[in-house]
Amino acid sequence: MTWIEDPEFAPDKPFGPQTLPYGVLVTGSGPVAAVRVGRHALPLRGIAGQLGPRLADLVAGGSLDPLLAAGRAHWRELRERLTELVTADRAPAGAELVRTDWHTLVLPFTVADYVDFFSSRHHAENVARIAHRAVAQLPESWSHLPVAYHGRSGTVYVSGTDIHRPSGQRKASGDLHPAFGPTRRLDFEAEVGFVCGGEPAARVPTSEFPEHVFGVVLVNDWSARDIQMWESTPLGPFLAKSFATSISGWITPLEALEHARIPLPGPEQPLQRYLVEHEPWGLDLRLEVRCNETVVARPRFEHMSWSPAQQLAHMTVNGAPVRPGDLFASGTVSGPERDQRGCLLELTWGGAEPITLQDGEQRTFLQDGDRVTLGGSAPGPGGTVIGLGEVTGTVLAAARR
Amino acid sequence: MTWIEDPEFAPDKPFGPQTLPYGVLVTGSGPVAAVRVGRHALPLRGIAGQLGPRLADLVAGGSLDPLLAAGRAHWRELRERLTELVTADRAPAGAELVRTDWHTLVLPFTVADYVDFFSSRHHAENVARIAHRAVAQLPESWSHLPVAYHGRSGTVYVSGTDIHRPSGQRKASGDLHPAFGPTRRLDFEAEVGFVCGGEPAARVPTSEFPEHVFGVVLVNDWSARDIQMWESTPLGPFLAKSFATSISGWITPLEALEHARIPLPGPEQPLQRYLVEHEPWGLDLRLEVRCNETVVARPRFEHMSWSPAQQLAHMTVNGAPVRPGDLFASGTVSGPERDQRGCLLELTWGGAEPITLQDGEQRTFLQDGDRVTLGGSAPGPGGTVIGLGEVTGTVLAAARR
Repeated sequence: MTWIEDPEFAPDKPFGPQTLPYGVLVTGSGPVAAVRVGRHALPLRGIAGQLGPRLADLVAGGSLDPLLAAGRAHWRELRERLTELVTADRAPAGAELVRTDWHTLVLPFTVADYVDFFSSRHHAENVARIAHRAVAQLPESWSHLPVAYHGRSGTVYVSGTDIHRPSGQRKASGDLHPAFGPTRRLDFEAEVGFVCGGEPAARVPTSEFPEHVFGVVLVNDWSARDIQMWESTPLGPFLAKSFATSISGWITPLEALEHARIPLPGPEQPLQRYLVEHEPWGLDLRLEVRCNETVVARPRFEHMSWSPAQQLAHMTVNGAPVRPGDLFASGTVSGPERDQRGCLLELTWGGAEPITLQDGEQRTFLQDGDRVTLGGSAPGPGGTVIGLGEVTGTVLAAARR
Repeated sequence: MTWIEDPEFAPDKPFGPQTLPYGVLVTGSGPVAAVRVGRHALPLRGIAGQLGPRLADLVAGGSLDPLLAAGRAHWRELRERLTELVTADRAPAGAELVRTDWHTLVLPFTVADYVDFFSSRHHAENVARIAHRAVAQLPESWSHLPVAYHGRSGTVYVSGTDIHRPSGQRKASGDLHPAFGPTRRLDFEAEVGFVCGGEPAARVPTSEFPEHVFGVVLVNDWSARDIQMWESTPLGPFLAKSFATSISGWITPLEALEHARIPLPGPEQPLQRYLVEHEPWGLDLRLEVRCNETVVARPRFEHMSWSPAQQLAHMTVNGAPVRPGDLFASGTVSGPERDQRGCLLELTWGGAEPITLQDGEQRTFLQDGDRVTLGGSAPGPGGTVIGLGEVTGTVLAAARR
């Protein structure tokens, strides 16, 4: 029984009481932190009186920043209390549901540092094959550590933000000189992001992963492949990625994913001790990528080679502390099957094999007006499903100054 | 004439009235924004009454963040007013000088995104020669665009912060397996950093550089060369750099460097239009690197190939806006002479040619206890000198968890 009259707020639905993701939406009185219940959101400010002063303080504002900083004990306590409140027979005093489809979500936290990993062997091998037209040759370090680079935190946007096609330099191998203009090879990358919180800490053991990760977002790491090919040697991608990274507005609490934990098929050779996991932190996340109305890929996180706990251990092993608001992404999630590839570069094999959308149109890379949406789910307790918040974005023509 | 009785606050000294850098220092009442006058600092909160309410609001707190956001008109107005106040015959009401050597400087602004360029041809060629033991082969794009990568903003530290030797994976070409432990090849890199402010803007033309850059800091981009060699293919440096980047606590206003502007010996081929400079934004900055008591290098910014205005234009040409608090660094400043090389990797030619310090000790890379200090200066108006704030840091043994 619950006082929430919403057929989507049921244990057999993705946003039932087993999920309870957090976000920030804009209401008449400004941005408010809220928890999602089916098609509705419950602003937390209204039920502050039911949370006790300590928890209420953490969620009274228009950002999840204070909650992220507060740490795991508070995350658990809040989730327990909210579970009680949303599954009660009667509405708690002050509760006012709002429709999620009537209100805009904003970026729910201030992004501190953004790190992007490269942890799918299938993706790394496909990219190498496409680039070299030969046998996949992974960099030697790839199997010994989760390769990563820092991205631009100032261009992490919330789901729904339109994305202008970026301009930049490109030079194909046959060209004499580089050309400048809007990218001709705009791509998405389907990734999973981890939102960090708790006390800043360096050298985080894999076992302490849940102390420092608040929850999970879906990530579209938009990429301009022609710019990337030209600029990335020797310091890695820069402008090819820094124009935009989209994340879902709803953050799934890590605690909701306890039943999704699985071991991953990690690299074969013995790992450095700091990368060993005693309890697996792989996650059985099933993603779905839509271009306009067509599902173009169904990547599964179970095919990744490095878990987020290994990624966090690696990221901090040199003494760099993880801070509340840090965001790290898995890298493109690709699997062994063709329809499990997480980006157009792989799906169209570098543009050589166009895909066909439902309306009969073909795509190698994205066109202006295309809308890319990532969704996903994970197994929850007792056969339920945990819905992951969607991330969507529409490509607009290149901006002119 | 001036009311400030400090022999270092004189037009023939580096921190005379022609310089006036800004910083934040810790006093009995907490951190306060201040302007440096010789060996002293003048906290701005005390003279708020002399600044007018608008300017006073920007500098009343313990951070330069509001001033950075306010934009160039306010930067100019504040500098003009402070110039009047510090060169007046009588102390303005509320003025209380404090000794810079008695007070700790803190990070004067919140670092948003941190970008590190690679814009010295001499450095890039030396690094390539050392790595390949052959003719320098620069990446093809190097002469067409200022190569860069994003660094970690959360580990940008103020001058004076001790730096723990980072640990990580390394694997020399002869090794069968990678090893883990404290870096054996800890290095400094002498760089110049640009602190951004004003309205967020994308596609910044080179001519609008001064609208978006508040001032200049010296930067030590600490680097672990063995970790870097092993991890950097294909996505660039990550843990080799992310453990620490040190910046000077005093920010030299860009306006103080008007007389230091010079053209740079840029790349030879025609540039894409967005990279063309109509007025040069190269800067005649003369750096000095000391290891303990010994000057080990005197790099000069005049040998750089890309100016900061070109770097900012490139960084934003894809649509990524520059925000207040963004910091971008030039890359290692190296010149054609041996003593103009800006890092130990180059100075010792990859460790093959140790340098000798004043006390007779030799160094290939940094040892625990070593103190690295960067200082510098630039030509000011009328034959004066503009001092650049020092950045210093001492290497501590690797931390154990």
